[in-house]
Amino acid sequence: MNDLCRLSASEAVGLIQQGKVTSEELVRACLERIEEREQEVEAWVHLDAEYSLAQARERDRASSRGPVHGLPFAVKDIMDTADMPTGYGSPIWEGFRPRADAACVALTRAAGGVLLGKTVTAEFASRHPGKTRNPHDPTHTPGGSSSGSAAAVGDFMIFMAFGTQTLGSVIRPASFCGCVAYKPTYGEISAEGVKENTGSFDTVGLFGRAVEDLPLFRAAVTGEPVRPLEPVSVKGLRVGLCRTPLWDRAQDYTKAFVEGAASQLAKAGAAVSDLDLGGPFADFEAMGRRLSDYEIARALAWERTHHFDLLSEYQQGKMRDWPVVSYDEYRESERVMTACRAYLDDASGELDVLLTPSATGEAPEGLDSTGDTAFNILATWTHVPCVTLPVFEGPSGLPVGLQLVGQRCHDHRLFEISQAVHSALSS
Amino acid sequence: MNDLCRLSASEAVGLIQQGKVTSEELVRACLERIEEREQEVEAWVHLDAEYSLAQARERDRASSRGPVHGLPFAVKDIMDTADMPTGYGSPIWEGFRPRADAACVALTRAAGGVLLGKTVTAEFASRHPGKTRNPHDPTHTPGGSSSGSAAAVGDFMIFMAFGTQTLGSVIRPASFCGCVAYKPTYGEISAEGVKENTGSFDTVGLFGRAVEDLPLFRAAVTGEPVRPLEPVSVKGLRVGLCRTPLWDRAQDYTKAFVEGAASQLAKAGAAVSDLDLGGPFADFEAMGRRLSDYEIARALAWERTHHFDLLSEYQQGKMRDWPVVSYDEYRESERVMTACRAYLDDASGELDVLLTPSATGEAPEGLDSTGDTAFNILATWTHVPCVTLPVFEGPSGLPVGLQLVGQRCHDHRLFEISQAVHSALSS
Repeated sequence: MNDLCRLSASEAVGLIQQGKVTSEELVRACLERIEEREQEVEAWVHLDAEYSLAQARERDRASSRGPVHGLPFAVKDIMDTADMPTGYGSPIWEGFRPRADAACVALTRAAGGVLLGKTVTAEFASRHPGKTRNPHDPTHTPGGSSSGSAAAVGDFMIFMAFGTQTLGSVIRPASFCGCVAYKPTYGEISAEGVKENTGSFDTVGLFGRAVEDLPLFRAAVTGEPVRPLEPVSVKGLRVGLCRTPLWDRAQDYTKAFVEGAASQLAKAGAAVSDLDLGGPFADFEAMGRRLSDYEIARALAWERTHHFDLLSEYQQGKMRDWPVVSYDEYRESERVMTACRAYLDDASGELDVLLTPSATGEAPEGLDSTGDTAFNILATWTHVPCVTLPVFEGPSGLPVGLQLVGQRCHDHRLFEISQAVHSALSS
Repeated sequence: MNDLCRLSASEAVGLIQQGKVTSEELVRACLERIEEREQEVEAWVHLDAEYSLAQARERDRASSRGPVHGLPFAVKDIMDTADMPTGYGSPIWEGFRPRADAACVALTRAAGGVLLGKTVTAEFASRHPGKTRNPHDPTHTPGGSSSGSAAAVGDFMIFMAFGTQTLGSVIRPASFCGCVAYKPTYGEISAEGVKENTGSFDTVGLFGRAVEDLPLFRAAVTGEPVRPLEPVSVKGLRVGLCRTPLWDRAQDYTKAFVEGAASQLAKAGAAVSDLDLGGPFADFEAMGRRLSDYEIARALAWERTHHFDLLSEYQQGKMRDWPVVSYDEYRESERVMTACRAYLDDASGELDVLLTPSATGEAPEGLDSTGDTAFNILATWTHVPCVTLPVFEGPSGLPVGLQLVGQRCHDHRLFEISQAVHSALSS
């Protein structure tokens, strides 16, 4: 592998800014790595080497446009692109060419990014998997639905990629593929031009290789200046160990990893306490699934009406009985979600960060399922930001992440805490 | 005018069900009226008479699909249609042909509706007006941004039309054009496939000719059975007269109309009280505009980057300075909106319905502005449902509506109350 591929996005951007590397060299390094590995991993649905190189050369000739000038990035094929086909992981949309870029794509390009290609998504960012394999072991799932983005970043094919999370589609595949990833506060990154799954939950997120990469891309998509990561002391950090009501679904080694991390932080001076979620969380998973089933059945009304036979069996099963979920049940689910958000805001008000698993364990064997979303729904459905750090290794030698959950709208603070926690656990 | 055009949607559907009229006859009646009036009103951007008639004949041959079987309807050209061009009111999107129908279009067609055509929208459902004139006086604005839908329904060209409201784009033009209209609880009708303006506010709404039409279309788009409107007694109805902090912007005759309606309801036995909005509402308008400016600048990132010169001067002015609104200001605005929602929910908990103006007065003269949104932002931004009833006539003889605001998620109840209020004010 070309060593350039091992750089983090922030390192690569730094080298471009210092004139030590060109955008074209970075793109070439990515393309070589893809050439080497794509047959095994199958992370991509669209790539055009010459087009990417031409874009990179154009960036190399231009003065800097913004915080990610010249940096190659990838986007999940659930996001519209004006110059690349967009298939949403469904044969219904094969060959579709949108007229415009999704907002996050347009903003990242306007900030200087070079879009290398489109990565594999599960059908409509839901559960029916695409072709991608786990780069650490091709007999295991990469997770989903942002399968290709996670695998491509985890396998050093690209520096950074966008994904989306409706249940657990960013954090879980990042854990399975050994990436850093970030699922923002709901609404932080515009979801315009992203095929809707569950409007109330859909959140655009990022895969990278280091916590330092996250503020770069956050700046690109919000239009804010890049904010440096101020050092945070673990000493006195108020950490809540949050097992969630679904703790039993974690593997024993995952439980031990997360509890071990909490102990390690306590030893480093953090004020660690347990955060037990009671109250409205008793029915959280069932209620959120019901809400999602209601919304996606309406968001996919055209597909359901005109191309039911081209939907996966999974999606057909979800949408065969109309109206799927009753209106009253839907609004009841929404009330429970609202109550859970308020409960978590209150309960975590005195805490700086929550620790919880990123996934139940290592990537499961087989490619038929993208894995259990048990530990992803908490942050997604309550709209709070989270980050996964690739800090553990499971019994089969596959990566396992640690999830840090921050406070709503304090995404940058979560980056700073994540960096401090990462250092503390690595030391 | 063919008398069929004067029917309400529910009357027309009833005649189809009884075999007394065909879908083809209804479509022909609409087309004749359009032929007669379109040169003056200019409500439409796309019509295809032969195609509509073919769809209608297909419906006439088929067994009933659902609650609006055979009924012609129209949609604002901010909504995607698979078989008609979709231009979002912008030259940037001229000639665009989406692959799919927006969810509300697909669902209404699946429920038997015949899509007659696309109606004029202001640019991106914002403030830069389209070509439409007010059908009651072509020198006056029809309102906007759902200009064509309001004018077409108000001028008897179509039985029912979809619009969207981000600030006041359904209720205000309905008031100006003399329609009944309904802006639902946020999220009630899926906005999938509708060009995004301000995701946090965008709400799909309906224009019709009678309150009885509203449950029909609500059933079509939610997939729920059509619920009959149960009679509600005005006696004992808890009515809140809500002048809002922007009362000064209402014309004197509008103030008199609304206060007169409150007195009339009180005489009929309603328990009328004043609802004064204090607390977080002090900065409501400024905060909501800031939130909207932030979101639309990101939703239109592709247009801003690639076609800035094709944006209206209005939109250019809004988006020239990047990042338009800072992130911290955006999130502060969002907190104020959340507080206002909670405040209104609490304050109106003891009330069945609020009375407030639908617009500051009659449609203003001239076509350069679509009018003042002062009385529309309350219900839109707090996510509660509202209905406008065409019950007043202004000093120039133009229609003026009365707005009824209901409780969140109790949209059907609001229909029932609206019907009772309409009867009481008409008697």
